[in-house]
Amino acid sequence: MDKGKLYLIPTILGEGTQNAVLPSTILEAIKETNIFIVENLRTGRRHIKKIDKEKNIDTTTFYAYGKYDTINLEQDFLKHILSGQNIGLLSEAGLPCIADPGSEIVAYAHNFQIDVIPLVGPSSILLALMGSGLNGQNFAFTGYLPIDKLERKKNIRKLEDISKKTGQTQIFMETPYRNNQLIETLLKTCSNSTKLCIATDITLPTENIKTKTVVEWKQTKTNINKKPTIFLIG
Amino acid sequence: MDKGKLYLIPTILGEGTQNAVLPSTILEAIKETNIFIVENLRTGRRHIKKIDKEKNIDTTTFYAYGKYDTINLEQDFLKHILSGQNIGLLSEAGLPCIADPGSEIVAYAHNFQIDVIPLVGPSSILLALMGSGLNGQNFAFTGYLPIDKLERKKNIRKLEDISKKTGQTQIFMETPYRNNQLIETLLKTCSNSTKLCIATDITLPTENIKTKTVVEWKQTKTNINKKPTIFLIG
Repeated sequence: MDKGKLYLIPTILGEGTQNAVLPSTILEAIKETNIFIVENLRTGRRHIKKIDKEKNIDTTTFYAYGKYDTINLEQDFLKHILSGQNIGLLSEAGLPCIADPGSEIVAYAHNFQIDVIPLVGPSSILLALMGSGLNGQNFAFTGYLPIDKLERKKNIRKLEDISKKTGQTQIFMETPYRNNQLIETLLKTCSNSTKLCIATDITLPTENIKTKTVVEWKQTKTNINKKPTIFLIG
Repeated sequence: MDKGKLYLIPTILGEGTQNAVLPSTILEAIKETNIFIVENLRTGRRHIKKIDKEKNIDTTTFYAYGKYDTINLEQDFLKHILSGQNIGLLSEAGLPCIADPGSEIVAYAHNFQIDVIPLVGPSSILLALMGSGLNGQNFAFTGYLPIDKLERKKNIRKLEDISKKTGQTQIFMETPYRNNQLIETLLKTCSNSTKLCIATDITLPTENIKTKTVVEWKQTKTNINKKPTIFLIG
């Protein structure tokens, strides 16, 4: 029997954007799949139902691999996929395995020569980079900055230093309710000539992508409290 | 008068894949735009015509910003966009401004507070990373490796070192006709336990994404001559 496939299924970054950001292959993959691995069961089910309105959620199996769940890779993944069933891996927002722990499941699949099919969808990281005007030929995403204040400043200085020395754009993010504090720390820590891009609400009608030097940002009052944002320096 | 917008318009990675990888927003943006900046005039026109079959190419203006062209940003870009016309920026393949010099045009747009709208489309870099099973929470793309053999080996060792020390996945590429030589050099240079992902023909029916340790790759004969490929180590 042929093995099933592991589809990596992107989800939307904000309500009501599915037609704008998801190509039709995603609907086809969902139609061919009856087992999904998601970060959160409730929102995972909603995502699937929104994209494929005809899906019978009651006969569809959902496994969670979020913060407080552990999936049994042998029982809940390998057994199904070796018996020919496709499995879909979803992130809470955007591309699975990017800025989330999904890659562990993909790595497990590679050990058993299972076909992994990544599907096209929205990545706030790359959309922000495209829109920033900063170097897209050499870039790094380092996730969340450390929470400890001193460590955080040290980290920002290190990222600024790498970008100055190598031209590599440095991309990072923050829990949305701490965005404003992060801006404050960035403006205090970085040198005036450093370029900072703040990319907020990517793909939403309120999308806002602005790149300015640190000294220019200091002249603006920016309030992006609780809005999903990607930060870039270069 | 309102300024025009700068749309960053993704293109397909291989023939015949437009329905699979491009969401409908791209068609809408092309309909609203009559000036395009492209890397190559001939293929740029073909891309636009393929996505919007009704577009009258004869009444559409194309500017080239490829290797051998220079665009006059004031005349060919600013004048149009300040007079309310939208401009579309296209790459030869995939996302504009990622692994191409388009970001210079976006940076120029930011100087004049022009709205930059990045659109969702295929990125071989991120699709390869998703499919690799390697760390997607910390990663860097560094473009092409140096051509000089010694420099190249030094660079590979440096990338391997960063990935070992920080867990940061290192992503890079090669001119397709030198792919096989690069594999040879990687297998000679990296340590046996390093994980190497070779992701070929992304989004095409022949797509192949495999992650193995260097010692496992040494036992396989891999021929990806002339096939577009992304390499990842982690």
